[in-house]
Amino acid sequence: MMTDDQTRDLIERFWRAIAARDWETVTDMLDPEFVCEWPQSRERIRGRDHFVAVNRDYPGEWRIAVQRIIAEGARAASEVHVAIAGRVDVAVSFYEVRDGRIVREIDYWPESYPAPRWRAHLVEAMSDQEA
Amino acid sequence: MMTDDQTRDLIERFWRAIAARDWETVTDMLDPEFVCEWPQSRERIRGRDHFVAVNRDYPGEWRIAVQRIIAEGARAASEVHVAIAGRVDVAVSFYEVRDGRIVREIDYWPESYPAPRWRAHLVEAMSDQEA
Repeated sequence: MMTDDQTRDLIERFWRAIAARDWETVTDMLDPEFVCEWPQSRERIRGRDHFVAVNRDYPGEWRIAVQRIIAEGARAASEVHVAIAGRVDVAVSFYEVRDGRIVREIDYWPESYPAPRWRAHLVEAMSDQEA
Repeated sequence: MMTDDQTRDLIERFWRAIAARDWETVTDMLDPEFVCEWPQSRERIRGRDHFVAVNRDYPGEWRIAVQRIIAEGARAASEVHVAIAGRVDVAVSFYEVRDGRIVREIDYWPESYPAPRWRAHLVEAMSDQEA
């Protein structure tokens, strides 16, 4: 059984290893049956070797800023800002942990879109720094 | 202090009330200082009345399917599928709870995008049912 603290620590260390491009550590934190899903593009990355390869080959250098991690037993969610190629991508992820390693990850990469006019009277505009 | 179970139950009931368009119950589950942020469009909805108004006025009828909720103390994350206007929107949300009510919510609405070709040799295609 994983405690909330153990799972949160695992996810923190995972993103630190991604930030450092430390593929050996990343590999060691993933279960041999690890699967990662990117539902927006309907891509499934099966196995830690393929996951590391996608990250290793991803175009651009990144800086990682973990915004929040919610950990409940062997499951977790995170929001991470990835500064890359002059923009900031947001990664929102869900995780399942088994025997101390991540066995499943689902990543969403939400992109900006214009605020619709129909609700303009009900909302405020967030600044660049806040979004 | 909220337990994981209490927070998870609150988020479950929140989405049930949204599904039922039961605005009285929704209002009662939100803190008077409730703020909701939609970072992709840089919109901030301040106050439960404005939040209810945006939901009430949102175009289209919806069916809600909660996929997962992760609750850790007074914080939570959820993934919800919203069938609306012939499509399925995904809502990924983070919550902060105070005195048994939601006081802050951050919603992301990730949209589909085409799978890039550079990583095609490292991924599998997910089916419609899986994505």
